Amino acid sequence: MSGLSPIQGVEAAARNAQDAARSLRGATSGAKNALLVAIADALEDQRGAILEANARDVEDGRASGMKEGLIDRLLLTEERISSIAAATRQVASLPDPVGEVVRGQSLPNGLLLRQVRVPMGVIGMIYEARPNVTVDAAALALKAGSAVLLRGGRAALHSNAALVDVMRTAVTANNLPADLVATIDEYGREGGVALMRARGLVDLVIPRGGAGLIQTVVRESLVPVIETGVGNCHVYVDRAADLDKALAIAVNSKTHRPSVCNAAETLLVHRDVASQFVPRVVQALQGAGVTVHGCDKVQALASNVVPASEEDWETEYLALDIAVGVVDSIDGALSHIRRYSTGHTEAIVSQDVAAVREFTSSVDSAAVMVNASTRFTDGGELGLGAEIGISTQKLHARGPMGLAELTTTTWIVEGDGHVRI
Amino acid sequence: MSGLSPIQGVEAAARNAQDAARSLRGATSGAKNALLVAIADALEDQRGAILEANARDVEDGRASGMKEGLIDRLLLTEERISSIAAATRQVASLPDPVGEVVRGQSLPNGLLLRQVRVPMGVIGMIYEARPNVTVDAAALALKAGSAVLLRGGRAALHSNAALVDVMRTAVTANNLPADLVATIDEYGREGGVALMRARGLVDLVIPRGGAGLIQTVVRESLVPVIETGVGNCHVYVDRAADLDKALAIAVNSKTHRPSVCNAAETLLVHRDVASQFVPRVVQALQGAGVTVHGCDKVQALASNVVPASEEDWETEYLALDIAVGVVDSIDGALSHIRRYSTGHTEAIVSQDVAAVREFTSSVDSAAVMVNASTRFTDGGELGLGAEIGISTQKLHARGPMGLAELTTTTWIVEGDGHVRI
Repeated sequence: MSGLSPIQGVEAAARNAQDAARSLRGATSGAKNALLVAIADALEDQRGAILEANARDVEDGRASGMKEGLIDRLLLTEERISSIAAATRQVASLPDPVGEVVRGQSLPNGLLLRQVRVPMGVIGMIYEARPNVTVDAAALALKAGSAVLLRGGRAALHSNAALVDVMRTAVTANNLPADLVATIDEYGREGGVALMRARGLVDLVIPRGGAGLIQTVVRESLVPVIETGVGNCHVYVDRAADLDKALAIAVNSKTHRPSVCNAAETLLVHRDVASQFVPRVVQALQGAGVTVHGCDKVQALASNVVPASEEDWETEYLALDIAVGVVDSIDGALSHIRRYSTGHTEAIVSQDVAAVREFTSSVDSAAVMVNASTRFTDGGELGLGAEIGISTQKLHARGPMGLAELTTTTWIVEGDGHVRI
Repeated sequence: MSGLSPIQGVEAAARNAQDAARSLRGATSGAKNALLVAIADALEDQRGAILEANARDVEDGRASGMKEGLIDRLLLTEERISSIAAATRQVASLPDPVGEVVRGQSLPNGLLLRQVRVPMGVIGMIYEARPNVTVDAAALALKAGSAVLLRGGRAALHSNAALVDVMRTAVTANNLPADLVATIDEYGREGGVALMRARGLVDLVIPRGGAGLIQTVVRESLVPVIETGVGNCHVYVDRAADLDKALAIAVNSKTHRPSVCNAAETLLVHRDVASQFVPRVVQALQGAGVTVHGCDKVQALASNVVPASEEDWETEYLALDIAVGVVDSIDGALSHIRRYSTGHTEAIVSQDVAAVREFTSSVDSAAVMVNASTRFTDGGELGLGAEIGISTQKLHARGPMGLAELTTTTWIVEGDGHVRI
């Protein structure tokens, strides 16, 4: 404990992070990769201390009546630490975004122009009680040449402190300043607010967690924020769909991993194929344990369908529930999506090029799937490498945010005494 | 007057703009270019009405004691209207950013992946009493496929109303919805606040004006903002500079157009060349009418130098004033820049590759000039076409913001029944 107020403490941490970030700005990819490998090794070497700290958090969680689902997110095991270390090594193996020349040309007057990726500086991360995010976020930030300030969930306090401790020691052992990685958890909730207010000291805040956390950060932050991850994703089965593919895509989109943001929450079926497709898909979904909430037409076509209310169309269930509706046309599907989508991912299943063209040009979301599962909106699946989250906003980053999205750019203009006339 | 409260009125305008933007989303470049040419023609055809409205604003301005510099910014003439129309035609001639495939590949599993530029949706513009911004902003937004909500300075109320009226008529005549271009000036200051709060309805707000306006918008807005244009730009003359080039660059950076954000405000000179360079550059600057504010060493080396205070290093003069300091090393220059820069543009004059490499890799600004005037940080000069402002923030856009920066992207993923395994 430092004896500083939360605002003083966070501002001091941010200034230290800014200073530390400078030493990483010019670091080679080799040096950054060596650091990440050293962090991975240290996490495995010191798993004893990490597991001990984690056991305290889990015990506290159980004592305060935390649900088993949340306990499971919080829990670390030897295997989980190894997989966190493996993910860190994987970040080391990704191409370095820093130094990439994004655009460049020589101008008519002889000026040589290039736009180059450079580190962001200091990245703040506000997240819930998932200790793996502590290391993931630090690894991605470091690889992108930035320092990271971590504000984790209170329930993971001891785990995060242990993980940060291990990482800082590894940073120092690699002759870099420890303040490249720091937690502000000791300053509690007020510290989180101070982080969001530290405009000019912190370059970017990324909230990662439930809709409530994200909305709070978006509302409160003066530091630029990237909104992540709320996904009320739709699958639209067109009149010209291959219904076998539609069935596989609908079931996969819903059930492959229901708790994540790219899972489908609503299925819309064109009326021309409804009588053929709805009974099949409802049965398949119910067979996979899904509760189907349907409109009147769906209720008429299949059994055991719960009536869907307005709320169902709005809800990101993140569970084995789905809302199913019949629409009169592709326009009906598009206007439903416009009304209820959170702008994450929408899919169309159709063999008709005109329908596909209309859907892809009209839907205003981060990703549009054509004859593919919504579950493909994922940095790893799309070949972007590790991701720090999936942005559902339109500025800076949209969709899976990889290393490139954690950088900014500088224009470098080389002349030979050039002045404006 | 609509009888709505400012919040109701602005929200209604934003919804109308959203609806209107949809019809522009799929518009061809040809259709958008024809619209812009029609707007340009209409501005010239109806210059009588525009000049009449502008005369009212100018008269009101004079009556309320507005300074002549501001009156000049507000004033429209036949010639100025022609140059606004010409700028609109120039936007029509630029390549369309919408539809550009930014990245793309086919993935190992056969998914075809592309990241495509798409329109932002609704862009809000908050600016001061410069009627040309009304048309510039609308032209850029329309070309980028978005609707625009304009909140101009109160002093240009009648001018802006007339310009918007002409543009809306031209939009309608081109079979597009008038609400692609709208002013919310009738809702006054509260309307501006409502615009900043309209998150979810408005996709982006760009403030354009003085530091006070920009800071207010950054602080108050819930809609994502791009910060533009505050430039405390530095020129550093290295020990290895070609001093003739340095002289030309320093004078050009300061005096070519002192009132704009890419003008230099501070000159830093390496001590090894100070006794040779400072007297020359001070004399040249003073000969061009510049007041030189200098550190002790500069005062000792040249005459008629005003002592520079802490405030001078911080000030964006936007006038024929410059702060001049002698630094002990390139590190001294870098740490001065770190402390006082607003992150817009810094220049180095040097023939030494090591110094250039250090400077370009250490300076954390939107643009770095090497042996060139700071005045080149400009969309037109850098070959990006027209610009809507110069971003000094790190997210989304950094440096001159052209058409591409007014768009967002969507990932389009085409499969053939692909599901995740």
